[in-house]
Formats: sequence, C-alpha cells, structure tokens
Amino acid sequence: MSDLVHLANPKDAGAIAGLLHDLHREFNEPTPPPSELAERIRLLIDSGETLVLLADDGPGGLAVLRFRPTIWSAGLECYLAELYVVPQLRGHGLGRALMEAALAEARKQGADSMEIGVDEPDVVARRLYESLGFSNREGGPAGPLMYFYELEL
Amino acid sequence: MSDLVHLANPKDAGAIAGLLHDLHREFNEPTPPPSELAERIRLLIDSGETLVLLADDGPGGLAVLRFRPTIWSAGLECYLAELYVVPQLRGHGLGRALMEAALAEARKQGADSMEIGVDEPDVVARRLYESLGFSNREGGPAGPLMYFYELEL
Repeated sequence: MSDLVHLANPKDAGAIAGLLHDLHREFNEPTPPPSELAERIRLLIDSGETLVLLADDGPGGLAVLRFRPTIWSAGLECYLAELYVVPQLRGHGLGRALMEAALAEARKQGADSMEIGVDEPDVVARRLYESLGFSNREGGPAGPLMYFYELEL
Repeated sequence: MSDLVHLANPKDAGAIAGLLHDLHREFNEPTPPPSELAERIRLLIDSGETLVLLADDGPGGLAVLRFRPTIWSAGLECYLAELYVVPQLRGHGLGRALMEAALAEARKQGADSMEIGVDEPDVVARRLYESLGFSNREGGPAGPLMYFYELEL
C-alpha cells in the first residue's frame, strides 16, 4: 500500500464520518449527523463487511469498500461505495492512490470483482476508473452499456 | 404476496441452483455445477443475507435479493442480483409478479432502496423495471444517467 494510504480501524470512525458528512454536504445530499455516521461505520468495520482506506494524515480522502460472498464463485464481490478527496487536495493523485490501494486490498480479501455506480457527468472519476481497467460495457469494449437502476422504497 | 410467488427456504436451494445454472447457460456465461451453487445458496439463505422468491411450482422463475446495512441511514439497501423466468413461461407476467413480490419483501425487510445493474439492450427487463418506478437517472427524470462499472480482479 502507498505511503499516502492506510487501512482504517474502528478508532478512525469519527474521521471517516467527518469526511462522509462533508461529501454529502458538498453534493447537497441528505446526511445524518457525523456522530450517527461514526457509530454505523464503527459497527460495519468491526463486522468485517466494510473496509475503509484513508489518504493523507488529515485524513484528506477515503475509499469505502463493501464485500459479500459471490453467488457464482467461492470468492467475494466488492462494491466501491464511496470515493472522496477533500476539495483542497484534489488534482494531486490522492484519488488514484486510494483506488490503487482499494484494488490491492480487494484482491487481498479474496474479491473476484469490483463494481461501482457512477453518474455520466462525473468524467474525472470515470476517467480514473477507466484508466484502471474498469468498464461500463459488459464483457469488453464492444459489449453493451451497463446501466445502474435505482428505486427508493 | 401473489399466489404465483413464494419466498424460498433453504430446502429450495436445489431448485434455485437449477434455475441459476439454466440462466447462465442461456446467456453463455460460466457457471459452477448446480450442486456447488446449491450449497452456496443454502448458506446465503441461512445467513439471512440473501432472499430468493420463486414463481410458479416448477419453479418457473426466480428473483434473488441481497441485503446489507445502508451507510447513510438505519435501513438496509437491497440489490436485485438475478431475475429469471424460464423461456417457455415468458410473456405471462411472471417477471412482473416476481418483481412486485420482491419490492414488497424488500420493504418488509426494512430496505430503503433497491438497486439493479442492467444491460442497455435488455429492453424487456428495463421496461419492466421502469414501469415499477426504477430509474437509471440520478434524482429524477432530468438527472444524469447512472452507469454500472465493473472490473474483474
């Protein structure tokens, strides 16, 4: 893992919650108070279902990975739930360092695949993911586009 | 729940594995033998992480739902991992009956949202999902398209 990035432990839950809170405020999405997020993050990290990578000592960014058993193999599938770098540290490769560490950690945990939902206009993120080999086309560059559908219940 | 659809229990693992095996063979995707799938399905249903809905007595179709805690709320998020109706029973509303039961069951389990990855050319499935309120646009009909990215590790 890069010197810039380290794997979070439950004691980092407060710092993680602060970053997640800032993330949703930046994108005008609803967020519970940081204390509530911190408690949930602590439980998820404790359970082993969620791993968080932190960049820089601030911390200045994070990647949140969630794991579950695959149906089609004996491995795990990994979902990149969040990737965030604080505004003042963008453009210095922290996002790439987080993603490279995330891929290494997912492989180490036994994941067969990593999946991400990405909005079409998020071209900076999409270019980063594509440069690492991610594709929104099924089975190769000539394959069909894959959409992410969602319904609030 | 519709008379056509019922919630599977671990004893149905063999029938579920048979349908999943047929699904991947129909779409020329690799699949482990049904006995291996059955054992995995049994463990996932036992753990409560996965729910399977079966349609018709054959069974003639299934929906596979996976749950995990949401980071942003106290609820669960639900992922529709598979939806399948055997070829000879298509066009009779089994897919819709499965989806309606899936939505009811996800709400009952405490899910805030349901998510699906769908290929662009799967227009029959996309029309079904859209008729139930699913959208591949973030935050409303005028919002940005959401892509599903994937990387094999």
